[in-house]
Amino acid sequence: MFGLYWADEGGLPAGDRGAAYGDGLFETIRMHGDRGVLLSRHLERMVRDAGRLSIPLANADLRKACTAAIARYSGRFTGQESDRGWVLKLTLTRGEGGRGYQPGPGIRPNLIASASPLPAPPPGSGVFADFSRVPLTVNPLFAGIKSLNRLEQVMAAREIEDDLFEVLMSDTNGDLIEGTRTNLLLKVREGWITPPVKVLAVAGILRQWLLERLRARGESVMECALSIEDVMGERCQGLYLLNSVMGVVPVRRLAGQDLPADDGLATIFNPLELLE
Amino acid sequence: MFGLYWADEGGLPAGDRGAAYGDGLFETIRMHGDRGVLLSRHLERMVRDAGRLSIPLANADLRKACTAAIARYSGRFTGQESDRGWVLKLTLTRGEGGRGYQPGPGIRPNLIASASPLPAPPPGSGVFADFSRVPLTVNPLFAGIKSLNRLEQVMAAREIEDDLFEVLMSDTNGDLIEGTRTNLLLKVREGWITPPVKVLAVAGILRQWLLERLRARGESVMECALSIEDVMGERCQGLYLLNSVMGVVPVRRLAGQDLPADDGLATIFNPLELLE
Repeated sequence: MFGLYWADEGGLPAGDRGAAYGDGLFETIRMHGDRGVLLSRHLERMVRDAGRLSIPLANADLRKACTAAIARYSGRFTGQESDRGWVLKLTLTRGEGGRGYQPGPGIRPNLIASASPLPAPPPGSGVFADFSRVPLTVNPLFAGIKSLNRLEQVMAAREIEDDLFEVLMSDTNGDLIEGTRTNLLLKVREGWITPPVKVLAVAGILRQWLLERLRARGESVMECALSIEDVMGERCQGLYLLNSVMGVVPVRRLAGQDLPADDGLATIFNPLELLE
Repeated sequence: MFGLYWADEGGLPAGDRGAAYGDGLFETIRMHGDRGVLLSRHLERMVRDAGRLSIPLANADLRKACTAAIARYSGRFTGQESDRGWVLKLTLTRGEGGRGYQPGPGIRPNLIASASPLPAPPPGSGVFADFSRVPLTVNPLFAGIKSLNRLEQVMAAREIEDDLFEVLMSDTNGDLIEGTRTNLLLKVREGWITPPVKVLAVAGILRQWLLERLRARGESVMECALSIEDVMGERCQGLYLLNSVMGVVPVRRLAGQDLPADDGLATIFNPLELLE
């Protein structure tokens, strides 16, 4: 079991390993009332990836804490804004203590639950994006884990200014990997292209759900390297940003160049149909 | 200026970006009484690297907080153990708030000061080390910064078991880079070899001081790639681990193979002569 902290009460232990080393992981879940979009997938990912980091976490304990967090927070987002929903964030750290980087024996994890309003939805007609100057480095052992080591995304997000919605990050080879808070999906004549999980900083819940849905419809989805030329060249029939909270967001202009954009894909993902 | 937190009082804001994203950096300083080893270099590194992360930090403010921390903590490490000294840890985070990865405008950093006893000194005759199975990935933009994104070091440190003192990490090309908490210095016939700052996760204070000292003595120091063959082969005349708190530590056995080891280098670095 873990120590449970409410973000609105403050008071995380100053020696928590999340604050010391980014030693943990998190989930952000789109909520409407007391139900969450693809909630089970979020909780299952946290349990699985905590296991990859050797942080003990039982699914049943996480479920119980999640239920308590929903009971605590959901009532705060009612009234006129209720249709827009809210965001539940769960952060799991390895806990407090140890000898430097080495965790102590029998260390108990901490779970921090916080809530915030759902951000305004991006326009269905598409958004503006640019390329980030911050390269993305992904440790193969931690690929896809939504860990608390997010300094690269923080520094890249500082480049999101004016009318930009997102910046896209490439690895040190120049392959396009993902946005600061979004996975990428490219429409081409033959089907869809998205970088494979093994190169991703964060393997998003919406990305995985959408790939399964597209394949179930008989569409071809290729998980392979994505180049800037793929996206900026004639091959591109549409570039989509995927984020569990904001949904499927078409890119209308990238680095000053217009892209073909429609919100056809957005109709596949209706968050209100996926509440649990 | 920043918000100042004492680790022994607990109560870091649960929304602090250090805990959320590892959005910050830290220093660990070897102290004896109210004086610190190479103290100015530690504080200057924090100011410089905070600048690289666009976290505002004035040298004078940091000095003042450091002086207050020393006044608070130094008296707790007195008596019989006083010769062994203590460790002052300063953690600077970007502060609280923002929209996800994007820091809010005018955000105020937090500084957390904590103290712990000096760990027992490693034997002068040398220590045992092994190679880590965790690859090290270093973002070129953040090379050398002692940031709070330390999940790789945490996972590697879990491999330090039994009589091991340290595990050595390689990058994804197989080049040897550094230990979980130590920089590497190899003695060869022609002089000394150490990996260059641009590939390091952490560019240590002791490493930099020692390179300057060796060069001042007219010795040849090469900052270039280090291979496992360099260290395990006949070229090796001694491998040293460098850490500001623990000093210069010779490796006596690496991955089960005996290495030539003496503590001659340790006599160059006498922490008690470098107190400020």
